[in-house]
Amino acid sequence: MDNYNTLISEYRTKIDNKLDEFLKSQTIRSHYLDNRYPDSLFVPLNYIMSGRGKRIRPLILILTCAAFGGNIENALDAAIAIEILHNFTLVHDDIMDNADTRRSKETIHKKWDVSTAILVGDELIGLSYRSLLNTNSNRIEEIVKAFTNGVIDVCEGQALDNQFENRANVNLDDYMVMIEKKTAELLMISSVIGALIADASEKDIQIINEYSLNLGLAFQIHDDLLDVIADEKKFGKKIGGDILERKKTFLYLKSIESGNYVLTDKLTGLYESNDLSRVNEVIIIYKELNIIEQTISEIKKYTELANRSLLKLQNVKASSLLKYFADMLLNRGY
Amino acid sequence: MDNYNTLISEYRTKIDNKLDEFLKSQTIRSHYLDNRYPDSLFVPLNYIMSGRGKRIRPLILILTCAAFGGNIENALDAAIAIEILHNFTLVHDDIMDNADTRRSKETIHKKWDVSTAILVGDELIGLSYRSLLNTNSNRIEEIVKAFTNGVIDVCEGQALDNQFENRANVNLDDYMVMIEKKTAELLMISSVIGALIADASEKDIQIINEYSLNLGLAFQIHDDLLDVIADEKKFGKKIGGDILERKKTFLYLKSIESGNYVLTDKLTGLYESNDLSRVNEVIIIYKELNIIEQTISEIKKYTELANRSLLKLQNVKASSLLKYFADMLLNRGY
Repeated sequence: MDNYNTLISEYRTKIDNKLDEFLKSQTIRSHYLDNRYPDSLFVPLNYIMSGRGKRIRPLILILTCAAFGGNIENALDAAIAIEILHNFTLVHDDIMDNADTRRSKETIHKKWDVSTAILVGDELIGLSYRSLLNTNSNRIEEIVKAFTNGVIDVCEGQALDNQFENRANVNLDDYMVMIEKKTAELLMISSVIGALIADASEKDIQIINEYSLNLGLAFQIHDDLLDVIADEKKFGKKIGGDILERKKTFLYLKSIESGNYVLTDKLTGLYESNDLSRVNEVIIIYKELNIIEQTISEIKKYTELANRSLLKLQNVKASSLLKYFADMLLNRGY
Repeated sequence: MDNYNTLISEYRTKIDNKLDEFLKSQTIRSHYLDNRYPDSLFVPLNYIMSGRGKRIRPLILILTCAAFGGNIENALDAAIAIEILHNFTLVHDDIMDNADTRRSKETIHKKWDVSTAILVGDELIGLSYRSLLNTNSNRIEEIVKAFTNGVIDVCEGQALDNQFENRANVNLDDYMVMIEKKTAELLMISSVIGALIADASEKDIQIINEYSLNLGLAFQIHDDLLDVIADEKKFGKKIGGDILERKKTFLYLKSIESGNYVLTDKLTGLYESNDLSRVNEVIIIYKELNIIEQTISEIKKYTELANRSLLKLQNVKASSLLKYFADMLLNRGY
């Protein structure tokens, strides 16, 4: 286990270094020296990219590549491409969610303005493809296609998420589709691209796709849970943000489907109100309905499904490394 | 000439049909039947895409492919990819410019909201890559790289354009860099991708790049001119929109560099004022400074540069077809 931890730390350092190097090569020239380079774009772009994330998506890409015997040096361009793409989604989602902070820092549209945040997001998409295309692989066409499926699904997932806020009849099925597209898809393309770079077999790619789908579903439900129970400092976001934004989270929809009409009426009323103390009241309802435990058991279910896929892999090292990663990912915050 | 006109009409029909077919395949499923497909995204997306544009960029791609003896059926996926990408820029630029109408229809952020317009633009980027990747070519990697350069440059060009609005010291050099990235680049990648699909030589690609750069510069300066002198109905936009938005257009910057301090002081004063009659007063200054004629002569200069590049092509048919297209493009509206 300690070995895996060391390995993951090493990979994270490689990702950070590669990302710094790439961004520098793209944005170092100031318009004071060269009028082709707009500081108004590059300063906020470097600001968001300097907020170190957990690097979950590039790590899964590199771990998958390594697991199938690929050379991880060949996977770094694609790994940072996914991280850059992930940051595009954060910048644009923060505008739509009207979020003030991200990773304990002001969001771009608050610190600058909406136009700047739109353009930074757009530029990040372009840069993500540029880095991806630096990948040296004879399966580059499949890689770019998988990546593009990710771009499209993540937009459609975000559209579903926005749509849910104004729709009364959202159920847990709708929710699962939404989080598959909005969250799980980027983990799926990360693992698939890692496997493609390692030139894995179609069968292995299918297995890894299944693994990362279930991991992604577990990850998003876990994220919904953290909104309610996490340590604010560690999480970098305010507790109850989803509740204030009237997000139809797993916990909310599970409550609605509980059949306890007294409490669900109270819950929908709280979701519609502007009462600032509603976060605590919603959490009390979740506790009364035993939703926290049910959510944890759902996370476990998808984690186990992910791990079960891994058992189908011939490669034992791959299987145990990816299992370690899944467990690490889903034990943060509580 | 009549033959060329017929040919271009035929190509335009092929582009429209291909675009309809592709968009249908991506967005036809309603979420009432399949909860994976967000109407909230696809309805506005189809709304913007149904506003028939001039199809300049896909036409240039197809004409270039045909000019170099390529099969234009192979170029249609890439042609509509460029058109979809162009529409992404329109949707996001309209938010930043706070524009109410586009092609005589309400803009997406006005008819729906800013979040919808952001997401539609993002989805269009994804769909543009998906269509591009349908291209069957052994030079697909070069094609996707050229396309990605276009995405990045167009964002950086837009950032420069936004930045100019708040910067006092913008000159014509800065302006030329900005329009190269914001406008000419998409024409350049269109022609280069058309040439790549036809498997043209490096030398021919270089020539066609030069042609479309100069054509693109002429095209943007012409667009600036149309803002002042065009027929509103034909143009689909209000006259003087650039002036009301305080855009540092070719005409404005050329006036500032005229050395006539009395009139340039008046001009900068008008640009800062909120007086609604300022459009007419600005146009009067342009006329007094003879700016309209100087702008027309600048458009001619770049058109001739474009046409001069074509003389270097061995292929006479290619040369005359592309020359015809340049002339057609720059004789609209006045």
